Amino acid sequence: MSPPTDRSDDPSRNHDRAAAAPRPPADNPVLVEVTRGDMVESRHRGAFAVCDTQGRVLLSTGDVERTIYPRSAIKPLQALALVETGAAEAFAVSDAEVALACASHDGEPLHADAAAQWLQRIGLSVDDLECGAHWPYHEPSLRALAAHGETPTPAHNNCSGKHDGFLTLAKHLGAPTAGYIRFEHPVQQRVLGILEMMSGLNLGDAPRGIDGCGIPQYGMPLGNLALAFARFAEPDDQPERRQAACARVRRAMAEHPVMVAGHERFCTKVIAATQGRALVKTGAEGVFAAAVPELGLGVAIKIDDGEKRASQVVMAGLLDRLGVLDDGAQRVLAPLLSPSLRNRRDETVGAIRLAPEAIT
Amino acid sequence: MSPPTDRSDDPSRNHDRAAAAPRPPADNPVLVEVTRGDMVESRHRGAFAVCDTQGRVLLSTGDVERTIYPRSAIKPLQALALVETGAAEAFAVSDAEVALACASHDGEPLHADAAAQWLQRIGLSVDDLECGAHWPYHEPSLRALAAHGETPTPAHNNCSGKHDGFLTLAKHLGAPTAGYIRFEHPVQQRVLGILEMMSGLNLGDAPRGIDGCGIPQYGMPLGNLALAFARFAEPDDQPERRQAACARVRRAMAEHPVMVAGHERFCTKVIAATQGRALVKTGAEGVFAAAVPELGLGVAIKIDDGEKRASQVVMAGLLDRLGVLDDGAQRVLAPLLSPSLRNRRDETVGAIRLAPEAIT
Repeated sequence: MSPPTDRSDDPSRNHDRAAAAPRPPADNPVLVEVTRGDMVESRHRGAFAVCDTQGRVLLSTGDVERTIYPRSAIKPLQALALVETGAAEAFAVSDAEVALACASHDGEPLHADAAAQWLQRIGLSVDDLECGAHWPYHEPSLRALAAHGETPTPAHNNCSGKHDGFLTLAKHLGAPTAGYIRFEHPVQQRVLGILEMMSGLNLGDAPRGIDGCGIPQYGMPLGNLALAFARFAEPDDQPERRQAACARVRRAMAEHPVMVAGHERFCTKVIAATQGRALVKTGAEGVFAAAVPELGLGVAIKIDDGEKRASQVVMAGLLDRLGVLDDGAQRVLAPLLSPSLRNRRDETVGAIRLAPEAIT
Repeated sequence: MSPPTDRSDDPSRNHDRAAAAPRPPADNPVLVEVTRGDMVESRHRGAFAVCDTQGRVLLSTGDVERTIYPRSAIKPLQALALVETGAAEAFAVSDAEVALACASHDGEPLHADAAAQWLQRIGLSVDDLECGAHWPYHEPSLRALAAHGETPTPAHNNCSGKHDGFLTLAKHLGAPTAGYIRFEHPVQQRVLGILEMMSGLNLGDAPRGIDGCGIPQYGMPLGNLALAFARFAEPDDQPERRQAACARVRRAMAEHPVMVAGHERFCTKVIAATQGRALVKTGAEGVFAAAVPELGLGVAIKIDDGEKRASQVVMAGLLDRLGVLDDGAQRVLAPLLSPSLRNRRDETVGAIRLAPEAIT
C-alpha cells in the first residue's frame, strides 16, 4: 500500500502515452472477502486510486495504470456537456433532470416518468431514445409494471436520463437526433473532448468499446479516472464555463440523490447520508468513482472480476478512511461498510468485508 | 497445468486432515476473460480438478486443495439419501421428482407445480418447506406471477425439490419433519454420512456454513468434490444400495434435464445436448461439478470471486477438452463455450472466453 505521497507516475502527464496498448494484467490484491459460516468463501481482487487535481496519487493499491472502461461511472462527466454548452439552460433542464442525466437509475416510476416528461418538453418521445428497453432493476417496480400488463419502454432503461441529456444536446447543437450514440456524432465528439481534458488523456487512439446502452466507451488508466473526478470536485484549472458546469452537476447530484440511482441503492444512500460531501457513481463491471469536493479529491475503483458487491464495500471503506463520513453518516452507512449476507430464510449466514490491509 | 498423472496429494487419502484450518489463498490463475470492444474488461480467477474414482487428479489448474463450500453443486449427492434409504420407493417418488431433488430450478410453473404436488402426495404442504420463498429466477415466470396478483411460495424457491426430498426422507425415517434443515437432524446426519464416504473426508470438524436455503454446508477441498463426483459417476467401490442409488439419480437427471434447472439454463442445455453423458450441476458462488459416467470422471470448478458466467465457460471448456461433446452437442453448445456479450440494443459488444492456456 502506497503512503500518501507524490508519485512519479502522475496521471496528468499521461497525455502522450494514452495510445499505448493495454498492459498485461498484474496481480491486483484481494480487496474484499465474502464469508459464510466458518470461512471465507469468495474473494475479489482489484485496484483503487485516490487522486488530487494535480494527479498526485494520495492513496492506492493495485495497478492504477491498468486500462479500464469507466462505464456508467463516467456519467457525471458526460453530463457536463449538457450544462456547459448552454443546452440545459436553453431547454430549461431542472436540477432533478441534470441528476437523472448522471444516473444509472432503478426504473422506479419517478425515474421513468421524469425521463419521458423531459423528452416531451423538448419535443421528442421515448421512441427517440436509442438505449434499448429493459425491465426495471427495482423489483417492486418491475412487478407493478407486469401486474398492470405493461412492458418497459426505453424510459425504464437505467441510462435513459443520460440519453435524454444527449438528445437535448443534439437539438441544441442543431445536429440530427438520430444516431446521437455514434462515435462520430457531434454529441459524442463534444463529450469526448470533455473527457480528454478532465482525464488528461488523448483518447483518440484509446481502446474503444460499446456500452450496455449503445454509447461509446474509451479505455483509460484507472488513475486517470480518479484524476478526472478530482477535477470534477475542484475544477479550478478548467475553463470558466466548465467550472460552472461542474458546480451545477455536483449540486444536482447532491440535492437529488434519489434521481442518481434509486431508493434502495448504494449511490443514493451515500450521497444522501453525506449530504453531497461524497458524490459517488457506480459503473458496470465493478467500477466506482467519486468526487469529494471538500478535499478536492477523486476516487476510482475497479474490481478485476466486475462485481458490484465488492466495489461498493471498497467505496464505503475509502470514504470512511478519507474522513468523509461523520458520525451520522457512519451510522446510516454502517450496513454498507460491511454488509451481512442473509439467506432466503432471512438468517445472517455471512458477510462481505474489506480484506485485511485492503485500505491502510 | 498438471499433466495427467498420479499425484501425491490424492484427495482420497485426505480423511485424516480434513479438520485442518482452511489454507490461506494461493494465487489461482485467470481462467476466464470478459472482453468488450478492443480489450479485456474483466477477469475471473479460479481452480478446477478432474478426478478419477481413485482420487487421481487427471487434469487441474490452480489450488485444488483449497477448501470450498460445494453449495448446490452437491445436490445430486444429497439426493442419494432419498433413494438409497428406500424413501423414494416407499413414497413412489418419480424420476422427474428425483431430478427435481437435484435441482437449482428456475421456478417455472412446471417446477413449482411438481414441488407442490409431491408434498401433497406425501401428506404435507408448502408450509412444511423451511427453505423460504423467493420470486422465480425465470423472469417470464416471475412476471406472470405478478401479472396474476400472486406472490411466490416456498415451492418457487430454487431449492424446493431438494427440500421435498428431505421431507420425504424425514417421514421415511420416522423423524420429525419440522427442523429437517438442522445440522443434528437425522436427515442431515444421513446426508453427511454419504458426503463423507463419497468425498473420502471426515467432515465432522470441517468448516461449516448455512446455505441460501437454510441447510448445512461443509467445507471440503475442491479436489475432493471432484472425487465425490467421480464416485457418483462410477460408484464401484460403494455399497450396493448406493451403487443403485447413483444409477437412479444419474438416470433421473439424464432423462429429465429440464427438471434439474430450467428451459433457459446451462445445466439443462448441457445435460440434454450430451444426452446425459455429462451430468452437470451448478452451485452458488462460482461452483460447478459434473459426473462423466463413460469416463468414470468427476469435475469440480470454483471461481474465486463466485461468478457463474465464468464457471459455466470453464465447465463447457472442460467437457470439450474431455471429448464429451460430440459434433451435435458441440453445435448446440457453441454459444456456451464462448458466449457473446450483448447490450440492451441487442448488439454484440464483447465475449466471455477461456483465458489463453486456462485448459491445456
